[in-house]
Amino acid sequence: MRGGYGSCRVAEAVIRGLTDVARRKAYVGYSDAGTLLAGLYRAGFEAVAHGPMPADILREGGDAAVARALAWLVEAAPETLERTVGSVEKTAAFNITILSQLLGTPMQPDLEGHVLMLEEVSEAMYRIDRSLFHITSNEQIRKVAGIKLGRCDRIPPNEPDFGMTEEEVARYWCRRSGIPWLGRADIGHDIDNKVVPFGRIASGSHAAVRNNKGALIGRA
Amino acid sequence: MRGGYGSCRVAEAVIRGLTDVARRKAYVGYSDAGTLLAGLYRAGFEAVAHGPMPADILREGGDAAVARALAWLVEAAPETLERTVGSVEKTAAFNITILSQLLGTPMQPDLEGHVLMLEEVSEAMYRIDRSLFHITSNEQIRKVAGIKLGRCDRIPPNEPDFGMTEEEVARYWCRRSGIPWLGRADIGHDIDNKVVPFGRIASGSHAAVRNNKGALIGRA
Repeated sequence: MRGGYGSCRVAEAVIRGLTDVARRKAYVGYSDAGTLLAGLYRAGFEAVAHGPMPADILREGGDAAVARALAWLVEAAPETLERTVGSVEKTAAFNITILSQLLGTPMQPDLEGHVLMLEEVSEAMYRIDRSLFHITSNEQIRKVAGIKLGRCDRIPPNEPDFGMTEEEVARYWCRRSGIPWLGRADIGHDIDNKVVPFGRIASGSHAAVRNNKGALIGRA
Repeated sequence: MRGGYGSCRVAEAVIRGLTDVARRKAYVGYSDAGTLLAGLYRAGFEAVAHGPMPADILREGGDAAVARALAWLVEAAPETLERTVGSVEKTAAFNITILSQLLGTPMQPDLEGHVLMLEEVSEAMYRIDRSLFHITSNEQIRKVAGIKLGRCDRIPPNEPDFGMTEEEVARYWCRRSGIPWLGRADIGHDIDNKVVPFGRIASGSHAAVRNNKGALIGRA
């Protein structure tokens, strides 16, 4: 199931239609919902994060994932965050394919100086390789502080075998592009998916907590 | 089999290494080889075309496809060309996924004023949709004279059903982006794949015919 795949069709219209009330809310999601998160962040929304979605409840042990997202939305609970967050100035996180397909569109956010975390699911290694070529060749992306690789799960077999792991592929493209390789990130299409806020981490809280407004978006 | 999938890794180095002798040759291919064709065209090579490759001989009736590519390479035979070619000023053709993954990289050619023909194979409709969002959202691509859609074959089923044909999807993104929709093109991952030279069609011939140099590149 790819329930989120219409995001690229609706994102621009959705963002155009959002009011100041919407601006004070918090948004969390991942996978195809990244298109919308990117657009919201680009539009200056303060509380946007990569993290679990309602549909994660369907995973074995998924209640922990949904509880994590809610704890970020409602309390900005620090234990929900990916461990890198807070030790660096700015962060962002995306599914590899989704970020690739955003580049050069009106949804592409300015990620200069951000630690960029990337994850993937159900894509063959030659596709991960090609998408990372695309992402790391982008002039704007080359301004990130570095790349951390999340989990790449359920990779279909390559025929012939690709001969490299996802980490080797990511390290290769970092080396070629001059983007610092910063190691692994604790995100992925799974119940352990930690929360990665977009942008600078306000000290201890975010705008939506102060306004008491949160929203879980999208589906897995 | 995705034998051409390393193109994005080698294209830059290959093109950097090509000499003036290589510049006088002709190049034809499709699918992943499009990465290389794009880079060659961008580098000012005169005789670059989208068309059949050696591996097409493995298809039922594939000898006709390979003979077509050879007739273009050796004689610039006009009957090898896609029917649009010659009636318009400039043309280019790509696999949808490959063009999408080129955008914003050092391989992206200037396609302003070109009739852009696109084809796809073995990609689910939600992927075709997302790639066409990506392609038609690109500022440089918006300067093309228009888009013609080639064949989109062996589309895996979408669950839930996408509810649109590939032509409806392409027309939708043309309408949204303001790119003229110019109908269907006679190209695809099949033995009827016609030749589409990149750029302006020199009257009756191309540089490599004058120099008697041709090369079939890549594999299916």
